[in-house]
Amino acid sequence: MKFIHTGDWHLGKLVHGLYMTGDQRHILDQFIGLVAEEQPDAVVIAGDLYDRSVPPVEAVELLDEILFRINVELNTPIVAIAGNHDSAERLSFGSSWYRHNHFYLTGKLTDRPQPIHINGVNFHLVPYAEPGTVRYLYDDASVHTHQDAMKRVIGKIEESLNPNEPNVLVGHAFVQGGETCDSERLLSVGGSGSVSADLFDAFSYTALGHLHSPDAIRHEKVKYSGSLMKYSFSEAKQRKAVSIIEMSDNGTFKARSHTLDPRQDMREIAGHLEELLDPSFYEKEKTDDYLKITLLDDGALIDPIGKLRQVYPNVLHLERKIEAADKKEKHNMIFAREEKKSELELFEQFYQEMTTAEFTREKREAIASVIDDVLKEEGGK
Amino acid sequence: MKFIHTGDWHLGKLVHGLYMTGDQRHILDQFIGLVAEEQPDAVVIAGDLYDRSVPPVEAVELLDEILFRINVELNTPIVAIAGNHDSAERLSFGSSWYRHNHFYLTGKLTDRPQPIHINGVNFHLVPYAEPGTVRYLYDDASVHTHQDAMKRVIGKIEESLNPNEPNVLVGHAFVQGGETCDSERLLSVGGSGSVSADLFDAFSYTALGHLHSPDAIRHEKVKYSGSLMKYSFSEAKQRKAVSIIEMSDNGTFKARSHTLDPRQDMREIAGHLEELLDPSFYEKEKTDDYLKITLLDDGALIDPIGKLRQVYPNVLHLERKIEAADKKEKHNMIFAREEKKSELELFEQFYQEMTTAEFTREKREAIASVIDDVLKEEGGK
Repeated sequence: MKFIHTGDWHLGKLVHGLYMTGDQRHILDQFIGLVAEEQPDAVVIAGDLYDRSVPPVEAVELLDEILFRINVELNTPIVAIAGNHDSAERLSFGSSWYRHNHFYLTGKLTDRPQPIHINGVNFHLVPYAEPGTVRYLYDDASVHTHQDAMKRVIGKIEESLNPNEPNVLVGHAFVQGGETCDSERLLSVGGSGSVSADLFDAFSYTALGHLHSPDAIRHEKVKYSGSLMKYSFSEAKQRKAVSIIEMSDNGTFKARSHTLDPRQDMREIAGHLEELLDPSFYEKEKTDDYLKITLLDDGALIDPIGKLRQVYPNVLHLERKIEAADKKEKHNMIFAREEKKSELELFEQFYQEMTTAEFTREKREAIASVIDDVLKEEGGK
Repeated sequence: MKFIHTGDWHLGKLVHGLYMTGDQRHILDQFIGLVAEEQPDAVVIAGDLYDRSVPPVEAVELLDEILFRINVELNTPIVAIAGNHDSAERLSFGSSWYRHNHFYLTGKLTDRPQPIHINGVNFHLVPYAEPGTVRYLYDDASVHTHQDAMKRVIGKIEESLNPNEPNVLVGHAFVQGGETCDSERLLSVGGSGSVSADLFDAFSYTALGHLHSPDAIRHEKVKYSGSLMKYSFSEAKQRKAVSIIEMSDNGTFKARSHTLDPRQDMREIAGHLEELLDPSFYEKEKTDDYLKITLLDDGALIDPIGKLRQVYPNVLHLERKIEAADKKEKHNMIFAREEKKSELELFEQFYQEMTTAEFTREKREAIASVIDDVLKEEGGK
């Protein structure tokens, strides 16, 4: 039995003010190619399909299209759960219909989890849930931490587990010892967010989402697939992949990792301004990658971001690293975290983050006129 | 062939600050009873399933449940389109899967409309679309008004219409001469929002949504079902129903209207305060209905809303009608449009209207502390 384990698609993700939808489509097209080639018995998506509970319309359309191509056109069963970024209820809409076509989407945790049987393997779906949700659902006042909650849910699953068949748990959790990065939302403050890997001992394979690196933990049977692509500069050095699992009837498995190629990579470079602007340097670079640039120059620089953008159009973050001559201490000075936006652009971004309505031409014109008035007034002072 | 025509469910509707979800569930339970009894060949929902493009989670869950009961449990085909209140793209998610189970949901208009055949009748689905959308989709610069747009779309449908079979158009539009009310959102300003009834001449029956009264227009073949329930006091005197259509093979039909009973009615009453508070009056009243009360008293009144709420817990709107002694002119003085809300409640309402995130206990506490500080400061001045 063969399945592909992926997760953390984060459709609708905004990175440094930039929508990643085009990049995500590029990667997902490759993913569909992989599914067509490998013809797995199932595709497992371990949560965070969307980046937020109300994703932008483009993300909704992209997910609909991609899942349709996998499930209906390629006739491949899908097993998917909600992650902490998804809205369990919104994602659940329609799931009763999807089941007819072997698309098993579990948004909300229930107190009576039922495994999905696909080609001899039992998939146990544990969507992300807050400890409070589990406490309420299982009427168990002793549940306070994520560890308590996962233990309670797995305890319930184990009541009816058939140990003579391969069992795969699909979950979205922070396993202790895992390496974190900036784009994973903290599950809770103070360490109670993590769960211990031994909770999953009863399962032949645990397909996890949440941590974005496929190498976040080293465990024989408990694995992260890693996110679809890099979503923050703290992931710049991570590899990004999906896992192809071939499982025998006794639950042992072979795992292969398949790398997906982003349209533009997310990388960090460092150097002196003059050096970075020198053709002999940048001609060897993929200059349209998403870049974090650290400038090593000491003195004053005139419009470094403007000059860099001429060569590297997608600088998302610019920092200066200045060595204090007397103390030899290093200081980071952030010069431009995001490109300089006009007041109108800033408002539009704010509006889109705070509401789900479209920022129509009428609205844009109304706000533009207010901003104009204010700027004129300020100019007159 | 028998189908039930309904529309304008507006799930997630907020009336004078009050969520109608419980009332909607009450009515929809009756509707499901009707479907079970009538066993129609299809249920037709003519748009505005939701009240807004991003409905609250409770509305999403209610729609999912109700459609599942009709379509899967009662095994009844559903034909539904997006209205002007729905998000075409968000509503469309998953529709490719629903079709497998004869649930035909069309969120977005396409340039190649395909009829749905159910038991000898062709259903032509025309979801709500702005004229600009039709202009772009059909690459026709002459489309400016809703009339132009509907004419263009119907022209396309007529190219492949089989006039020897019954044809039903399902649309969401404002037909000229229709009576409007407060809770229908204007399609456009200046009259270009309406379409003429003769556009629908080629169809045996046109199942419309948008206007909330089943009596909004008098036409032999072009009909509104009316909304599920009353959504504003301007609808207080409207009857609310769904239409049961039995259609012969030649396209002629018999129509019956079936009234649904709301949990609480929405009504207007008027009188002097003393009279309204007199048991001999209110004992005959259904005092927990949603009420707009007009007080006819002349002089000053002490806390009328507080007194009225003791008897009528669901006063949503209170007005005073004062006859000016000298001029005999009538003035309306609105005393309490909504109940007096605390700063925290007002903020919560604002937050829920502007965002889709939950107003969690943490957020509530943070805001409460800010409000406390401000009030203390103001008190200290």
